[in-house]
Amino acid sequence: MQYGEGGNAFGNGSYSFSNPVFASLAGYSSMALLKMLGMSTYTMIQRFCTGNFPTPEDDIYKKLMNKLGLSSSIIGNKNDKVERARNNHLNDLENIIPFVLIGLFYVGTRPKFDRALWHFQIFLISRILHTIAYQVFFLCYFVFV
Amino acid sequence: MQYGEGGNAFGNGSYSFSNPVFASLAGYSSMALLKMLGMSTYTMIQRFCTGNFPTPEDDIYKKLMNKLGLSSSIIGNKNDKVERARNNHLNDLENIIPFVLIGLFYVGTRPKFDRALWHFQIFLISRILHTIAYQVFFLCYFVFV
Amino acid sequence: MQYGEGGNAFGNGSYSFSNPVFASLAGYSSMALLKMLGMSTYTMIQRFCTGNFPTPEDDIYKKLMNKLGLSSSIIGNKNDKVERARNNHLNDLENIIPFVLIGLFYVGTRPKFDRALWHFQIFLISRILHTIAYQVFFLCYFVFV
Repeated sequence: MQYGEGGNAFGNGSYSFSNPVFASLAGYSSMALLKMLGMSTYTMIQRFCTGNFPTPEDDIYKKLMNKLGLSSSIIGNKNDKVERARNNHLNDLENIIPFVLIGLFYVGTRPKFDRALWHFQIFLISRILHTIAYQVFFLCYFVFV
Repeated sequence: MQYGEGGNAFGNGSYSFSNPVFASLAGYSSMALLKMLGMSTYTMIQRFCTGNFPTPEDDIYKKLMNKLGLSSSIIGNKNDKVERARNNHLNDLENIIPFVLIGLFYVGTRPKFDRALWHFQIFLISRILHTIAYQVFFLCYFVFV
Repeated sequence: MQYGEGGNAFGNGSYSFSNPVFASLAGYSSMALLKMLGMSTYTMIQRFCTGNFPTPEDDIYKKLMNKLGLSSSIIGNKNDKVERARNNHLNDLENIIPFVLIGLFYVGTRPKFDRALWHFQIFLISRILHTIAYQVFFLCYFVFV
């Protein structure tokens, strides 16, 4: 591969949306980051489902839920489902952020468009599958083993 | 909005400090990141105030504090104030970093300057207010409720 | 220092690999990020060495280790060595990611090459020394004190 020539005909401006590699990095990175930000909402949902809140201020929600008859107040400092969601969020931070940053430098090396697209797509799909496996299909372990 | 034309007259170089949108992103991002890095110092202060340190090496500080007569050694693995500072730091990581990264891609779409500035300012202010609310004003809850 | 002129002769394209400051930022950032990603592997190794796994699915590894005669199954929810590796990973996240992001903006200000290189090198070396000190030499504390 000829460095700086192989990828595309854009001599200047590898960091602009006229460069398809940068545009696809922007798209896939944003999707991965959106997925990561979605983990906050997922953690919130898990907290409400299990009645597990981190701070004493949140007791107001417990009272609300008790009034509504949703007495899901298994009071305990650590809940397995909530911790699972939080660990997933941290794992996303540890993997998606370096991907975006290294991706930015990778675009600068002017890679071939097809090859770059492959990397971005495989990364995004693997992150989504990781989340599904970690949050949903771990149950299969208890069913089949 | 005309894509690529609406925002400014800078045909080339959306990623340079001659582009006011990029310059303001750089400014507000740096301020947000600085605030985030400041959480380390804040956690340190909370650790010294409560005498709660994470590793056995840090016992040296406890001895020092005892010598100085500051016997604030409520020995315990988890301290509420320290955990609160740490959670705040993690929350900053989960929100400020994606903001900067998505902001970088956002600048590439050449948004209108006013509109972009709005986003950046509202984000920075909301993060600062979040920290103040989480670290200081939660006390109001115990006073008023 | 003349702003925008002092650093180098590259009038356009401060964000391209023809700019030596950007190229060195890319190199040192990638090394720092690689070191950070290596913490995952290190945590894994510590988990296998101590037989401490985070989720119930991982019991399969414990069984495997017992079959192989490596009965290192000190069952407990928190292990000191594993927590140390995890804390180190989080500390890297809190420091290396802001470094890369602020570094990107710093390149835009067209700093002098020598000076920028200094910053990047000192940062990388200090992060590596921090990890070594936190993971290995903390033992010295128990030996000498």
